[in-house]
Amino acid sequence: MSTPDIADSPDRAVVLLSGGLDSSTVLAIARAEGLACHTLAIGYGQRHAAELRAAQRIADAMGAVEHREIDVSAIGAFGGSALTDAGIAVPETPGDGIPVTYVPARNTLFLSIALGWAEVLDARAIYIGVNAVDYSGYPDCRPAFIEAFRQLAACATRQAVEGRPVDVRAPLIDASKAEIIRRGSALGVDYSLTVSCYQADDDGRACGRCDACRLRREGFATAGVADPTRYRSEGG
Amino acid sequence: MSTPDIADSPDRAVVLLSGGLDSSTVLAIARAEGLACHTLAIGYGQRHAAELRAAQRIADAMGAVEHREIDVSAIGAFGGSALTDAGIAVPETPGDGIPVTYVPARNTLFLSIALGWAEVLDARAIYIGVNAVDYSGYPDCRPAFIEAFRQLAACATRQAVEGRPVDVRAPLIDASKAEIIRRGSALGVDYSLTVSCYQADDDGRACGRCDACRLRREGFATAGVADPTRYRSEGG
Repeated sequence: MSTPDIADSPDRAVVLLSGGLDSSTVLAIARAEGLACHTLAIGYGQRHAAELRAAQRIADAMGAVEHREIDVSAIGAFGGSALTDAGIAVPETPGDGIPVTYVPARNTLFLSIALGWAEVLDARAIYIGVNAVDYSGYPDCRPAFIEAFRQLAACATRQAVEGRPVDVRAPLIDASKAEIIRRGSALGVDYSLTVSCYQADDDGRACGRCDACRLRREGFATAGVADPTRYRSEGG
Repeated sequence: MSTPDIADSPDRAVVLLSGGLDSSTVLAIARAEGLACHTLAIGYGQRHAAELRAAQRIADAMGAVEHREIDVSAIGAFGGSALTDAGIAVPETPGDGIPVTYVPARNTLFLSIALGWAEVLDARAIYIGVNAVDYSGYPDCRPAFIEAFRQLAACATRQAVEGRPVDVRAPLIDASKAEIIRRGSALGVDYSLTVSCYQADDDGRACGRCDACRLRREGFATAGVADPTRYRSEGG
């Protein structure tokens, strides 16, 4: 007969969930911090659609309050990235400078969409799994970018005007891949559900050769954690 | 037989074009500043789809290099606005505070999409027709918001890393509606092509009663410019 006490309602968070290793770890961190997690996967015309299916499985497995998938693949029409433009090959050896897998303004767009949902939910924080160590070539994975978006969020919304700006949290920004894996393993993340490969097959099996695969494989080795990744080359 | 001289290529701009009065004026300003204008209309599930058709007509009439329409109406699923949620009525009398027509984080999202295209085009500037005078109730129409997004753009992209950050320009931010109309009229804007009404019919005819209609009508009257708006109540 009683109305739930407001104190019983945990603060909400919007967690950007790509289906990969980093964002799954971030979801575990946000949950461990006691937040009610609303997970958000964004389709932007990426080649690795298996990631979106992985995101749904991870949200289910890790107790997300709600999972949504938003399609903005229309932005792929702008081109400019190997991940959305079939005319640009995904590289299989590390290069110098900003990788061709960089998607123009992707994290700005993702955080903007998360900001809109956070405002509707009156969420306290947005979580994003960006990381400046292994992916330092991406402009929008740097601490200065996250800080700039935090400043933007502090004035962009109704919540901000009312004195409750949403925080923007990137808890893995300074972590190595091995540190991320150790932290997630301690929090019980099942990494067999995650897909990192830039060119995973429809079943989510990894190529084992792209930059994302290489970093992931090295991360498990360095962390001393068994690598649960399913590679295509392993055969059936 | 000659390759066009780079000096013959004007700098590019991405101009957010809603099909309304303000953004059409901004397009005229960017053109007058000598920029090659790439116009961008964004479908976000707004009720007034007539605006999107108006944007195409305005881009054609005003010499845009290219016009694109990007659909992100999936974000309407978050709800929270009278412009995307059929369950919330569009008000016909001015209210206090932030209007129900406010769309959560809309300008953040629009500028993010423009930023991605600007990066692919290597554009010098993004133009947006926000205005703090008549629409001061919207958090993301304030000068502080535009400045925060400019700071974000200064670190978010490949261009920024390479020392050529895109500028974010809101030339109407401090102008009254009458000033905007005078300025656009001097630049030859044909306001009969524009649609401002929050609930225009399929033919682009205005209701004459919503906030947007009221501000527009008062603007023409104050500017001493004949109002070319087609209202539904005028009959056939």
